[in-house]
Amino acid sequence: MKRLFPLTLLALTAQAAPPALSPGEIVTASPASDWVTIAPSDLLVMDLASDSKNRPRRVVIQLMPPPFSQGWVGNIRLLAKARWWDGTSINRVQDNYVVQWGDASEKKAVPADLVKVLESAYSSSIQSLQRGVAEMIGRQTGVNGRNQTKVGFIGRPIPPDDPYGGTSENRLGWPTNRSATNVWPVHCYGMVGVGRGMPPDTGSGAELYTVIGHAPRHLDRNIALVGRVIEGIEHLSSLPRGTGALGFYEKAEERVPIRSIRLASDLPRSADLKFEYLLTESESFARYADARANRRDAFFISPAGGADICNIPVPVRRAR
Amino acid sequence: MKRLFPLTLLALTAQAAPPALSPGEIVTASPASDWVTIAPSDLLVMDLASDSKNRPRRVVIQLMPPPFSQGWVGNIRLLAKARWWDGTSINRVQDNYVVQWGDASEKKAVPADLVKVLESAYSSSIQSLQRGVAEMIGRQTGVNGRNQTKVGFIGRPIPPDDPYGGTSENRLGWPTNRSATNVWPVHCYGMVGVGRGMPPDTGSGAELYTVIGHAPRHLDRNIALVGRVIEGIEHLSSLPRGTGALGFYEKAEERVPIRSIRLASDLPRSADLKFEYLLTESESFARYADARANRRDAFFISPAGGADICNIPVPVRRAR
Repeated sequence: MKRLFPLTLLALTAQAAPPALSPGEIVTASPASDWVTIAPSDLLVMDLASDSKNRPRRVVIQLMPPPFSQGWVGNIRLLAKARWWDGTSINRVQDNYVVQWGDASEKKAVPADLVKVLESAYSSSIQSLQRGVAEMIGRQTGVNGRNQTKVGFIGRPIPPDDPYGGTSENRLGWPTNRSATNVWPVHCYGMVGVGRGMPPDTGSGAELYTVIGHAPRHLDRNIALVGRVIEGIEHLSSLPRGTGALGFYEKAEERVPIRSIRLASDLPRSADLKFEYLLTESESFARYADARANRRDAFFISPAGGADICNIPVPVRRAR
Repeated sequence: MKRLFPLTLLALTAQAAPPALSPGEIVTASPASDWVTIAPSDLLVMDLASDSKNRPRRVVIQLMPPPFSQGWVGNIRLLAKARWWDGTSINRVQDNYVVQWGDASEKKAVPADLVKVLESAYSSSIQSLQRGVAEMIGRQTGVNGRNQTKVGFIGRPIPPDDPYGGTSENRLGWPTNRSATNVWPVHCYGMVGVGRGMPPDTGSGAELYTVIGHAPRHLDRNIALVGRVIEGIEHLSSLPRGTGALGFYEKAEERVPIRSIRLASDLPRSADLKFEYLLTESESFARYADARANRRDAFFISPAGGADICNIPVPVRRAR
């Protein structure tokens, strides 16, 4: 193991000797200009029934921006505006896998204006991602992002190799993987996806799940991802596991009632729900990812020299 | 995505066209001779206080065989025989990370016969692993494993690339990673490790944790792994998250009391605790790993062509 230390020292020297900060310290020290405010229309707020001690249980989900999954994201906004989920429930909790919610009867009609989305939308073109990054940097900096060296895929990505094929990287604020032509979001802890039946175009967005275990990356490009839980995931991940097949609750009384799901922009006090994420195209994020892959804080004696995409979660926090 | 189908069909043809079974179906169909019985002396049985509905909560942990972590495993056997954990508690539950248990006061003296284990034991030589595999296959088949082609590292490993460096593979029944000279167990969901202070030789085995989230692989070779939870992990993973720093419970009454931790071989009814795991060096396991990496069951439209080591969990079941 000690042979790793010279390599680490070399890396430190090559990178102009940053101090040995932990990943969290790098995030805390990052400038305000590296943080992107999340629009209230991109926040989905799920209020569950209070717990056994009468404490509120709120889960906040960030929806994905273009070019990812916008057909399903649009459906989800319609479902929230129609208050479709109010009175539905958490129906499935499978250990080391997913928590799933929606209409337990599977008979409730969805709004007529939902669109049918084809499986081709499970991924997007590289060009559409590059446009999205350029626009986002433009919004963030007031400068046309296309003129910035930050745009595009430069430098050695962390992680360098993805065991599922492709090149995985955090882009546009989200964990992604890509081929030479296409890019798609990946199933990390806390990601939210669209349940479906056997035909791949049958997921409307009414049935949702979130990952509560090791990243089930075999689902990438086989189910639509639409967002991630950014606050309150413990209200889902610590629920009793279902004892039925696939972790479904066997008795109706085991289900957790959903009081309401709303877009934050439709809530009376949306100003209380301000979140921001660390710009994945910033220098701060690059330093954070490098520190996740090469832990130099005092506890670590053998930095790995790498990390998988789901072990480099995009920092999200309450805006100050 | 459709371009993946020809590749998959090619792989099927090259592998003498196995039927499109799911990973679970392959495991169910595997012959009894591919299953290895777990010795009762390798099972650690943790009984927690009953839950709020007076239901028992039992967690069963499989301890690691040589060449892995035997100094700490020996200490754990001594601690169980001394009934050291009886009356201690679960003290920390951090979402997407770990559940940790031991003496909350941090003042309880450990038995005098525990050994101090150096950090050099975080990994083992490749030769010692090969000896272990040969001996295990010998026990399993009645034939000296060293004469079998199964021993050693043959074929293209799945996964081929490990983002943390090295070559990761399930070996001797456990998820491992290796360099050219050394091999070490890795931090997958459910793995059990030894808490320690800053100096890397300070973990005795009295303070233990298990992973309840995405694999924290940055801990590999930085903390000793000693086993994995093989039954009852839901009694740990669904506990309320601690609200203190690092997920520690802030109030004593939040801690979950541990009634006892024993080796199954020291329990009066150890015969009720028979488990077995799928031999990782068997053809059945190779087919299972391949099916995890290339999902061909009906639901999947885009098999990944790979999987990370922690998404190929070693099948463990109650022996029939």
